[in-house]
Amino acid sequence: MKVDGRHIRSIWLDADGHTVSAIDQRRLPHHFVVAQLATCEAAAEAIRSMLVRGAPLIGATAAYGMALAMRADASDASLDRAYKALIVTRPTAINLKWALEEMRSLLRPLPASDRAGAAYSRAAEIAEDDIVINRGIGGHGVALIEAIAAKKKPGERVNVLTHCNAGWLATVDWGTATAPIYLAHDAGHPIHVWVDETRPRNQGASLTAWELGHHGVPHTVIPDNTGGHLMQHGMVDLVIVGTDRVTANGDVCNKIGTYLKALAAYDNGVPFYVALPSPTIDFSGADGIREIPIEQRGAEEVATMTGQTADGRIETVRIVPEGSPVANYAFDVTPARLVTGLITERGVLRADRASLAAAFPERIAAAAE
Amino acid sequence: MKVDGRHIRSIWLDADGHTVSAIDQRRLPHHFVVAQLATCEAAAEAIRSMLVRGAPLIGATAAYGMALAMRADASDASLDRAYKALIVTRPTAINLKWALEEMRSLLRPLPASDRAGAAYSRAAEIAEDDIVINRGIGGHGVALIEAIAAKKKPGERVNVLTHCNAGWLATVDWGTATAPIYLAHDAGHPIHVWVDETRPRNQGASLTAWELGHHGVPHTVIPDNTGGHLMQHGMVDLVIVGTDRVTANGDVCNKIGTYLKALAAYDNGVPFYVALPSPTIDFSGADGIREIPIEQRGAEEVATMTGQTADGRIETVRIVPEGSPVANYAFDVTPARLVTGLITERGVLRADRASLAAAFPERIAAAAE
Repeated sequence: MKVDGRHIRSIWLDADGHTVSAIDQRRLPHHFVVAQLATCEAAAEAIRSMLVRGAPLIGATAAYGMALAMRADASDASLDRAYKALIVTRPTAINLKWALEEMRSLLRPLPASDRAGAAYSRAAEIAEDDIVINRGIGGHGVALIEAIAAKKKPGERVNVLTHCNAGWLATVDWGTATAPIYLAHDAGHPIHVWVDETRPRNQGASLTAWELGHHGVPHTVIPDNTGGHLMQHGMVDLVIVGTDRVTANGDVCNKIGTYLKALAAYDNGVPFYVALPSPTIDFSGADGIREIPIEQRGAEEVATMTGQTADGRIETVRIVPEGSPVANYAFDVTPARLVTGLITERGVLRADRASLAAAFPERIAAAAE
Repeated sequence: MKVDGRHIRSIWLDADGHTVSAIDQRRLPHHFVVAQLATCEAAAEAIRSMLVRGAPLIGATAAYGMALAMRADASDASLDRAYKALIVTRPTAINLKWALEEMRSLLRPLPASDRAGAAYSRAAEIAEDDIVINRGIGGHGVALIEAIAAKKKPGERVNVLTHCNAGWLATVDWGTATAPIYLAHDAGHPIHVWVDETRPRNQGASLTAWELGHHGVPHTVIPDNTGGHLMQHGMVDLVIVGTDRVTANGDVCNKIGTYLKALAAYDNGVPFYVALPSPTIDFSGADGIREIPIEQRGAEEVATMTGQTADGRIETVRIVPEGSPVANYAFDVTPARLVTGLITERGVLRADRASLAAAFPERIAAAAE
């Protein structure tokens, strides 16, 4: 999407044809810094340090990491080393493993002299495929926004609420939850986004607000506590969030706090949509609340906050009393009964087993094996 | 309650018999500082600057402010000046107006020579009355906790979730939502409190966690997003929150985000209680969502966060991109249908018009006049 009028992706190949550039997301929203990744080690460190984050972007970065390794040394030993260096960076990221296995199985049979070229081609394809999927999600999702806009007075804006960052920064371009929003905005529909700040890591305030603002989409940052009040007063037309995993019966695992917004949406008759690329569906899972293990993260994410002082310094401040324990559950599960629809690249589906099975028969067959 | 073993209130009269001391709540949780209020002007400034906050504590501070004014100058002109100086400090605080009118109507008919003594006596009574009411709330509320404890295995703790600060720091002692918690803890029941950090002003992380920790009550600070997940997994036995206003039919206005927790409690069969002194009930109001105006506060509360750096400096950092608008609704309304019960000094009442009318017939009669 655009940053102050210039089109940009979260990751791209430099003009030299081999160096990889990525936005350093640790510096957002206060500093826009592009990092050059010239080696596989640099790509691995970018993933580990969360210079890049978001499942699809991690996958693309890992693929480019393999290409960088092949350019430096196309031997079998180098291929294995690169795989091992990259796979340990974020152990639970499904896209990371998928991208690395895709690259290794492509490269292994090739003569060493062909590996670098093939690796760069496939990494570029992986990035392009992500863009195509998200554009597809956007196309289906924008119809939902247009249907709401059609019932409004001319010029009256459609209010979308979103949680966390399922934006273009988490993918290669477009984002998942944001793809319908960008398409609607670019098509000239008046749209406004309520952005949950998304404690404790504040991805809404620091990433979603940044990307919407720089693309020119009207938005307002709100504390996570606010959405229920807005929905009670008719100030939200629909909710669109992303997801980390959807079970075969439509339960949605997403950033902690998503469930509370789904409850409020249900209580107020506000449609609650989840945007996702279909690989996010786990056809081997059924009851999300009972089956999905919820990662607990470090206490410092809750106990401290990092930001910019009035005179421009970046500081981290403690906001919880010394000695008070904290808990940091990263995700929660929204039961399918609260989900109006799943926006996928194959269309908007009901969040139930029958609808998912009908749309993805090949996945159901594979999961049954 | 106790601070590291020493009993303390949020406001008290010094040994000299006229200077008023109060905890400077702006410095919590990182610094425990007591402020001496030696003049009416100092008391007014303490309320205005939020050195003291919480409706009952504001009322007690204002009453002592009138006493300080009478000690300096007991004339009619001084009485009027003090009233005017104090009433404008926090225009919407109901207890402030009530305490000031109480003091003025008491003092006006008295000869000037009697006013200072009478004012100090009445201010002390107002403070003591608050303690008696909260102790009464605690007595009714602790029975709810004991009933849950009775169904647990020996030593298994009762998990309470609370939002914002309805603790002793907001009152003179005991607090409202915390009174049952302190009584249960002091009686030896194993109890643990999940403390919502309560963005944007973080009263949970900075005040509730501080007071529970210093009294010795086990607790854990959580992002506001977390409560739904905990309830889904049986980790919350009951919710107890305070309130700023309850309507005659039991709708509850409280800190923004309370409604989301009430929805999650209802969805998971977790009892949701609201603790309140009966003056908080507004018998002239009915539909809370439609009738109660919700205050919007300054953007900087959402856009910035204040805390302590690792080397001990207090810093304020910006956490929202420059140019991103924010919204800051201070309260929301939880409909009565989601409230299990109202814990008042006259007992635990159902959140409906008939129950409130039966418990407070004199208030219903007064509202009808």
